[in-house]
Amino acid sequence: MLKIAIVGATGIVGQQAIVNLTNHPWFKITNLAASQRSAGKTYQNALKDGNGSSRWWCPEELPEEIANIMVEDASEFDPTCVDLIFSAMDAKIAKELEPKYAQTTPVISTASAFRYEADTPILIGGVNMDQVALLAHQQQKRGWQGFVAPKSNCTISGLTISLKPILDNFGLKQVIMTSLQAMSGAGRSPGLSAMDMTENVVPYIAGEEPKAETEPQKILGQLTSNTIIPADFKISATCTRVPVLDGHLVSTFVETEKPCTPEEVKAAMTSFGKEFTALNLPSSPANIIEVTDDPFRPQPRLDRERGGGMSVTVGRLRKDPLFTNGIKYVCLAHNTKLGAAKGAIQTAEYLVKYYLKWL
Amino acid sequence: MLKIAIVGATGIVGQQAIVNLTNHPWFKITNLAASQRSAGKTYQNALKDGNGSSRWWCPEELPEEIANIMVEDASEFDPTCVDLIFSAMDAKIAKELEPKYAQTTPVISTASAFRYEADTPILIGGVNMDQVALLAHQQQKRGWQGFVAPKSNCTISGLTISLKPILDNFGLKQVIMTSLQAMSGAGRSPGLSAMDMTENVVPYIAGEEPKAETEPQKILGQLTSNTIIPADFKISATCTRVPVLDGHLVSTFVETEKPCTPEEVKAAMTSFGKEFTALNLPSSPANIIEVTDDPFRPQPRLDRERGGGMSVTVGRLRKDPLFTNGIKYVCLAHNTKLGAAKGAIQTAEYLVKYYLKWL
Amino acid sequence: MLKIAIVGATGIVGQQAIVNLTNHPWFKITNLAASQRSAGKTYQNALKDGNGSSRWWCPEELPEEIANIMVEDASEFDPTCVDLIFSAMDAKIAKELEPKYAQTTPVISTASAFRYEADTPILIGGVNMDQVALLAHQQQKRGWQGFVAPKSNCTISGLTISLKPILDNFGLKQVIMTSLQAMSGAGRSPGLSAMDMTENVVPYIAGEEPKAETEPQKILGQLTSNTIIPADFKISATCTRVPVLDGHLVSTFVETEKPCTPEEVKAAMTSFGKEFTALNLPSSPANIIEVTDDPFRPQPRLDRERGGGMSVTVGRLRKDPLFTNGIKYVCLAHNTKLGAAKGAIQTAEYLVKYYLKWL
Amino acid sequence: MLKIAIVGATGIVGQQAIVNLTNHPWFKITNLAASQRSAGKTYQNALKDGNGSSRWWCPEELPEEIANIMVEDASEFDPTCVDLIFSAMDAKIAKELEPKYAQTTPVISTASAFRYEADTPILIGGVNMDQVALLAHQQQKRGWQGFVAPKSNCTISGLTISLKPILDNFGLKQVIMTSLQAMSGAGRSPGLSAMDMTENVVPYIAGEEPKAETEPQKILGQLTSNTIIPADFKISATCTRVPVLDGHLVSTFVETEKPCTPEEVKAAMTSFGKEFTALNLPSSPANIIEVTDDPFRPQPRLDRERGGGMSVTVGRLRKDPLFTNGIKYVCLAHNTKLGAAKGAIQTAEYLVKYYLKWL
Repeated sequence: MLKIAIVGATGIVGQQAIVNLTNHPWFKITNLAASQRSAGKTYQNALKDGNGSSRWWCPEELPEEIANIMVEDASEFDPTCVDLIFSAMDAKIAKELEPKYAQTTPVISTASAFRYEADTPILIGGVNMDQVALLAHQQQKRGWQGFVAPKSNCTISGLTISLKPILDNFGLKQVIMTSLQAMSGAGRSPGLSAMDMTENVVPYIAGEEPKAETEPQKILGQLTSNTIIPADFKISATCTRVPVLDGHLVSTFVETEKPCTPEEVKAAMTSFGKEFTALNLPSSPANIIEVTDDPFRPQPRLDRERGGGMSVTVGRLRKDPLFTNGIKYVCLAHNTKLGAAKGAIQTAEYLVKYYLKWL
Repeated sequence: MLKIAIVGATGIVGQQAIVNLTNHPWFKITNLAASQRSAGKTYQNALKDGNGSSRWWCPEELPEEIANIMVEDASEFDPTCVDLIFSAMDAKIAKELEPKYAQTTPVISTASAFRYEADTPILIGGVNMDQVALLAHQQQKRGWQGFVAPKSNCTISGLTISLKPILDNFGLKQVIMTSLQAMSGAGRSPGLSAMDMTENVVPYIAGEEPKAETEPQKILGQLTSNTIIPADFKISATCTRVPVLDGHLVSTFVETEKPCTPEEVKAAMTSFGKEFTALNLPSSPANIIEVTDDPFRPQPRLDRERGGGMSVTVGRLRKDPLFTNGIKYVCLAHNTKLGAAKGAIQTAEYLVKYYLKWL
Repeated sequence: MLKIAIVGATGIVGQQAIVNLTNHPWFKITNLAASQRSAGKTYQNALKDGNGSSRWWCPEELPEEIANIMVEDASEFDPTCVDLIFSAMDAKIAKELEPKYAQTTPVISTASAFRYEADTPILIGGVNMDQVALLAHQQQKRGWQGFVAPKSNCTISGLTISLKPILDNFGLKQVIMTSLQAMSGAGRSPGLSAMDMTENVVPYIAGEEPKAETEPQKILGQLTSNTIIPADFKISATCTRVPVLDGHLVSTFVETEKPCTPEEVKAAMTSFGKEFTALNLPSSPANIIEVTDDPFRPQPRLDRERGGGMSVTVGRLRKDPLFTNGIKYVCLAHNTKLGAAKGAIQTAEYLVKYYLKWL
Repeated sequence: MLKIAIVGATGIVGQQAIVNLTNHPWFKITNLAASQRSAGKTYQNALKDGNGSSRWWCPEELPEEIANIMVEDASEFDPTCVDLIFSAMDAKIAKELEPKYAQTTPVISTASAFRYEADTPILIGGVNMDQVALLAHQQQKRGWQGFVAPKSNCTISGLTISLKPILDNFGLKQVIMTSLQAMSGAGRSPGLSAMDMTENVVPYIAGEEPKAETEPQKILGQLTSNTIIPADFKISATCTRVPVLDGHLVSTFVETEKPCTPEEVKAAMTSFGKEFTALNLPSSPANIIEVTDDPFRPQPRLDRERGGGMSVTVGRLRKDPLFTNGIKYVCLAHNTKLGAAKGAIQTAEYLVKYYLKWL
């Protein structure tokens, strides 16, 4: 078993990492680290709020063996005591601490700190695992024994996966998207106000659209020896927040290079990623994309758990009336599973087996 | 005071017509008609369900003087006993009964039955009142003393209003829209299931997108002597249902003919429709469009009541990164006020004063 | 494997029975029956609505092998082709058909049709399994080879379980309860209106309070040779509906015969039902009652799935200031698991093993 | 016009005070004060958050003339520059500052700081205005020219009003209540988390039950020369939070001294408080209590605005099966109108006219 530390363990992403790493066949959580405020307490006590209530937010119960781990101070954490680090820190702190850890130890990160570095890929299972090769360049250039491998922004995880088979088969010219994002994406400290999100929609998420308009091109880009050349298509995004717990839905309009029928796109999506799922990584779903013919689907509450929260569900595939070559659809991905902790763990699985070759 | 009958009075649109016509300075509700099942009962009793509860769904109280009106059978209703008919019937029944009424009496309708007839305009206050002239052709051609004047689909009311100043100032090439529609748009008999609409989004509304992709062009079209030539731009729509009570939000991406900055579009929208609001019709708002600079607005719950539910709120105006000339924004309209009963009443006000010249 | 038929298979309770019986170690679903309207179609097709959407409402996927079973007409169903019948019919139809089936075959029922018959127990696992003996009297008196064993009303499942250890240890004088009931309790045909249940509470559920004020006394009553003498305490109930998907919460105030401290009640509840759970029935939870010390719990969304939806969670145990001997608390039970299909299946498990002795 | 200052002006209660005092016939807001952080900014700017969005949370628009008032530092505010102070501060700060202000100026307060002082009444319009006389004692004893008059806890406003006609006509022995409280009661800084309040109930509100179990007795108590002797009945309360925006619903079980039928209680409630409403105070409703016969009412969303948010709606009046003499019902009050700012303003109206005799 590989020893893994979760840094940023008390936040919601850290908690989800705990849930998804408990009973994992390859990884064992041996260390938890967080801010100084939590350091020196058992994990269980670090989660207690002033009213004696626990800020453990996952529906799954907090595992006994985790509850009693003593939380360490992230800024003083010794990365050499574990094989791998799962970083769920805020971007600002991640920027500072992840490079320290990476000097000796591989870091899988849900933070955005390194996403836009030229020598760093944004990895999504089944989509761009060839870009893993860039990590060797990152290690060499920075003189690290470890590396930092960040996951993508949660909003575009599902969208980018759905675009990959379109790009491969029909080419991409432009994408217009409106997201209807779940509230869990805003975190829990304190997260969104109930008074704002009751029978309401908020048509803006600070900082989200610039990420949505640039990350997919990098993820779907061309690997060179020392960087990634972004794919050559444009995205226009409007990101909204809707009163849904989990599951980001994206209304998508795509102009393609070549003609495509809904049936062809369905076929391309359905057959997508079979080599990757054939690797049978512990966190991988049976199907990376599932296409539904029910016109009323996908719905966040009904479809977000498909494939253990790791499948993207695409529905409403139909010809776009504007573009000579085009398609429109909605896609749904579980933002705190595929789009966060579990997606990052899937990447960790791939890296330890096929890049680090520890298994 | 002009005598007005509400036909389809027991449904939610009929109820909203009652609320908006109560204490109206020009109209007095003298007759209520509905299906045979309700006929012969007082309105109050016709609303009682099996459990002794009232199916009066408006937050406003049912006016005393309306409660005791005896409901008549719509299929046997004598249109000559009133000056004007407000039709809130289902499309299928409207198709059959509205022409009968129109032989003698003007009909303002919220049903879709006549919207797509070549000799019939779809009127929206401040947008296309010049098309009122087509009603004369309708009357003459069909040999009617009255007429049928339908309102637009509720989804595109706000969108179409927001597009009008863009069309006038910058020209329109294409529009991509994703609607986030309120639940009240699905009516109340029985309407949407609470189990479907709790922390969920339904990415499809049967029959909505074809209307959204064609009505705006007719409304914004060119009047000729005997019909309307649709405006020459295309729309691609995805319509979704969100857990909001009232207020349809539309995420809108527009390619224009000419260059336009967000500031120019804001100026065009803000100054739009001043001649119409200057008419001071009882149901008109102070501003047809209100533009907000708060990036988190418009929000359905906070902004739907602007201008008494008759103003369209536009926010998030910004350059679209895809189109050489383009703009993107979100717009919000109250679907059961501007988009239904109150919008139709505003049209009625215009027609009695400036077309029928009864006032 | 015992062959089981689900009658009333297309409704929500029938669907939940399918989910809970799929992969059951003892039972195999061999037949599905429903109203004439569904008969002759595959189950999958019987669920299709007019829009091509499936009325399969469970989050779990419809099992392949069930999807293709041909639905039979409940009124003509031959009960002898199965070992056991799970009845999820409406009370009125159940009243007519359950006796027919029971002539030859045991019927486990979620309907209320037989609950108040003098010769029929209302069985809840761990609470009153001694009352199973009354079924022999029912069979003999009615000349049935089978029997009808109904489950309790979903509202009082959790309450009654929580009262049993109090009754056993401290005696019961009176109970005042206010329920906050989930929307799934109202079914799905069409169930509650989304417009009624959005940011709202409905302080009445037709027909619920009389059941809540009488069923617990029967369930907790004294078995005689031919009937059950209700336990001698009174209940006053107010039943309300809240915007929660699943999980009925009951605010409970209890006057006891003998003094009791919160600690004593907690101990009595925590140790309750160990002989029953020791039977290890497939649907039984590890703990019939779980007591939480977190003052903010139990919460429906966080606690309803405890014990696979079969545990009752009790919280906020504290002295009642009114009664010399008294206790107050809130309890939560999953209304569509413990309170409906899965609770009935647990009863079926007990009956086939310990009453019918088929296993 | 009397000059009034709002202290604690930036919080939600302060905002509601602004809304309810704008266009008031007797009062004019001349000063706004808040914490040091807001001092020296215009009110409008003090409300801006880091994202450029306004933390003005009322559905009504922020009045122009208020927006530009310069906010003062509450701790340095000179109370002599106004006739009256409306205090919407947190309890802790109120404890410190209200006595300072009261040395010269009357203070109407929504804070709990002075509620439990022996020389201070908790005033509710129509219920205990005779207790106003105690303010003279407070002034004399403390050597104040002004006074502090606090409003009651929002949860028990409606309950206490509903109990008053029962106490007067039938006597009170004990009350068992379960509240279903709206989210706005938790304030906005930051208030409740949307993730906690979505399709969920939280069965505990810190600090609420002790208030609910003691304030009503003081409000309904006997005035003596220097204090109030609490009414002699007991209350047992469980307070829960439900996903409702505004409107606290209380499920109430009452044991009375004398027999009472639902009809008698309805008559007592309906005729209650007519002398008070006859005073025609600007904020008073036509009826202090409205009794509904619709079994499904009152509902928070439908009934909270009755009487401009100042009427209590009582429904489901019926015999309680437990008590020889008893009644049960649900009552609803608008927690941020009757239960907070507007209720306090009504008290202010009474005081300036009938105690201070300034009008």
